[in-house]
Amino acid sequence: MANQFVSQIADIETDFPQWYTDVVVKTKLVDYGPVKGTMVIRPYGYAIWENIQRELDSRFKQAGVENAYFPLLIPMSFMTKEAEHVEGFAPEVAVVTHAGGAKLEEPLVVRPTSETIIGHMMGKWVESWRDLPLRMNQWCNVMRWEKTTRPFLRTSEFLWQEGHSVYATEEEAEQETLNMLHLYEEFAKTVLCMPVLTGRKTEKEKFAGAVATYGMEAMMHDGKSLQSGTTHYMGQNFAKAFGVQFTGKDGVLQHGYTMSYGVSTRLIGALIMTHGDQRGLILPPPVAPVQVVIVPIAAKKEGVLDACHALRERLQKAGLRVKLDDSENSPGWKFNEWEMKGVPVRVELGPRDIENGKMTVFRRDTCEKSELELASAGEELCALLGEISENLYQKAKKRMHERIVNAETLDELLKGVDGGNFVRAGWCGCRECEDRVKEFAQATARVMDGENTAAKCVACGKPSVHTVFFARAY
Amino acid sequence: MANQFVSQIADIETDFPQWYTDVVVKTKLVDYGPVKGTMVIRPYGYAIWENIQRELDSRFKQAGVENAYFPLLIPMSFMTKEAEHVEGFAPEVAVVTHAGGAKLEEPLVVRPTSETIIGHMMGKWVESWRDLPLRMNQWCNVMRWEKTTRPFLRTSEFLWQEGHSVYATEEEAEQETLNMLHLYEEFAKTVLCMPVLTGRKTEKEKFAGAVATYGMEAMMHDGKSLQSGTTHYMGQNFAKAFGVQFTGKDGVLQHGYTMSYGVSTRLIGALIMTHGDQRGLILPPPVAPVQVVIVPIAAKKEGVLDACHALRERLQKAGLRVKLDDSENSPGWKFNEWEMKGVPVRVELGPRDIENGKMTVFRRDTCEKSELELASAGEELCALLGEISENLYQKAKKRMHERIVNAETLDELLKGVDGGNFVRAGWCGCRECEDRVKEFAQATARVMDGENTAAKCVACGKPSVHTVFFARAY
Repeated sequence: MANQFVSQIADIETDFPQWYTDVVVKTKLVDYGPVKGTMVIRPYGYAIWENIQRELDSRFKQAGVENAYFPLLIPMSFMTKEAEHVEGFAPEVAVVTHAGGAKLEEPLVVRPTSETIIGHMMGKWVESWRDLPLRMNQWCNVMRWEKTTRPFLRTSEFLWQEGHSVYATEEEAEQETLNMLHLYEEFAKTVLCMPVLTGRKTEKEKFAGAVATYGMEAMMHDGKSLQSGTTHYMGQNFAKAFGVQFTGKDGVLQHGYTMSYGVSTRLIGALIMTHGDQRGLILPPPVAPVQVVIVPIAAKKEGVLDACHALRERLQKAGLRVKLDDSENSPGWKFNEWEMKGVPVRVELGPRDIENGKMTVFRRDTCEKSELELASAGEELCALLGEISENLYQKAKKRMHERIVNAETLDELLKGVDGGNFVRAGWCGCRECEDRVKEFAQATARVMDGENTAAKCVACGKPSVHTVFFARAY
Repeated sequence: MANQFVSQIADIETDFPQWYTDVVVKTKLVDYGPVKGTMVIRPYGYAIWENIQRELDSRFKQAGVENAYFPLLIPMSFMTKEAEHVEGFAPEVAVVTHAGGAKLEEPLVVRPTSETIIGHMMGKWVESWRDLPLRMNQWCNVMRWEKTTRPFLRTSEFLWQEGHSVYATEEEAEQETLNMLHLYEEFAKTVLCMPVLTGRKTEKEKFAGAVATYGMEAMMHDGKSLQSGTTHYMGQNFAKAFGVQFTGKDGVLQHGYTMSYGVSTRLIGALIMTHGDQRGLILPPPVAPVQVVIVPIAAKKEGVLDACHALRERLQKAGLRVKLDDSENSPGWKFNEWEMKGVPVRVELGPRDIENGKMTVFRRDTCEKSELELASAGEELCALLGEISENLYQKAKKRMHERIVNAETLDELLKGVDGGNFVRAGWCGCRECEDRVKEFAQATARVMDGENTAAKCVACGKPSVHTVFFARAY
């Protein structure tokens, strides 16, 4: 029976891209939309996004950030006000040219990100130092017309949050850029059970219009890197482009300093490719739509279904997200189905378990079975879910650290990324060398290490200025 | 001091439209976006929407509906598959013609509603009776290019939820259409403290492509009606257009029956115009971003601020949304500000209150002051907020029922709506008479009453077939 299901999913080691496609479609996380490059997020996938949203949103609110909503359509002229920004985004925008049965005077861009329109509104709202800092976030859809797309990882439309703040001083705005990076890192660890590398991006990899971009990068099962979140310090670039000015305590009119930060539905792709195995998904307990699935054994025997219902109720009261699969499929079919769907814990309950006051518990992360006391089911399963989260994180962390290798030459770097590693190497800081690494090894600078520990640039051999994590990336 | 503020808001009785505009802008609920007809929902307004979302979303989930997300852009060809639907929506869609730097082969419509694209996906997903019912909801932005716009009430882009279900039988789909109408009605009453009239819409007023539309209508301060939510029974119209077919238990391939339902950010406009008064907003406690504002009196006296902080903490622990206004403005300034912003309860805490173990409490709905015990602040204020909710509902309900009048002639009907009433009148059921009422009295059929209690049609005098609530409407 098991083989029947496993055979539906491509081999994770030899064909990881197909494994990913099989898993996201067969588990009904997502489907392809009718317009090329779009996705439909199905209930099982959207429930993961809701859990991500709830966890992140409470962290933002705790940090004092308020939610707002800005319009989808941005005047084309706004995009051109910040020179680097338009260069970065113009090639991938979708444009509304007609509306209400007539041609528009000015074409409107479907937001690829909202720095420009939020900058415009901040320019209206900010007048005095008393109005600062102004810290807002929005949950919304954005659109970037991509040539090659994959569900969650790169789609023409995706869902995200984008936070935007304006501060009176450079120091505060820079500090917030780092604070939000750390918030993301803690969230990735605690909620997605996903270790990340964080650091500053190179000039080549930074956000169009930013002074500095910081990113968090996660290592996927195949050793490639997935950019999972970014924060940007904008200096006064957008404040100057949109007239975000305030009168300081000193009575002087001056420009504010802005920053922004975002994560998207891409995080769902990240957690799938971090934790999944040959059987399918392994969902981290904090975001799993179903944390515990109860499968009745010999369901027609007297008392079994009643006991399952009673257990479900108790577990729900204990705050767990529980599903009782009382469908007519066989237990074996259900085991496979819910394993593929990545439910962290399966409870099997049959006549003998009930008689003994026990339940049989299968944990998805290790695929091990054990027996637990029915009487203390709530506490035992809560503790087990915590243990699973910790194990998932430690396992992924161990893999990531085992797969960070150092390189002093381009050949070593190539060998490193070919072997599915992140490669730590010195870099002189010049664009030519960064381009050379890309050409030679199809690897990009993911983030810069906090300190420069290498002696020489991996490409030109001149003194190293930054130590960089290079990797192939999604 | 009070006058200074009141004078900023137009007179509610003589210039209600300007009152509305003044209130929504000055309380920072909303601002105008740079593109004509768009709005920016500012944090204070968005927090109301979040509270509405949370309350409605939990009701949907309780009812067994799951959230999902469908693409923003819909192929133009989809819109034309249901004949009435395209006729209704074509004049107001925004169209993407270019993307990624090139002209698109087929223009894409920014969704005005998602029946078509969801119908298309349901057609892919539904195969057997086992797949039914399929019940989904999405929270998203939609766009309808309107000529005359007003914040929350009618904007080219707005936020909403749209639920879509497919059932195997007509009876189930029709029943769900009524169930969701009742869910909305209960929500309006309990959460928005807003009484509504519910009923079926006439053919003229129904959704483009529906077999039957049901609506809930609320009476605004000026006696006009605001359509606040609708549910639609589609029969097999969309199922046939998009091939939503399933094999029944009898082995026969057949079309499903679909229905949909939605409410939008318009609800924020509804509650403002239901409850507001000359001083500004009066927010119902269940959705108020701030339920209790604490204003320190003689804040510089020893112990006052400490007592205010301690009270805030206690009230937060009691589950209340509390703001302590410790800014440098005068108490009088703060009173006016928070009254304008509609905070249900103000607590004033000064040295004498603290000494006596009391707090001075001002309730926004009646503008009455009283003293409550500090020791039991949490319970007392929770109870008071409940009382305020009940009072707001009863007050609005009384007004609505006092302002429903009967008419037997067009002159009576005109007199009724001129006087700011809903008019209950007989109708023969023909479109000509409905148009005649519109022309004669600028009133439209809002909903039909459950039973036909009138003898004659108000327009032609022939026997009445439906009793209708006519009103001027937003």
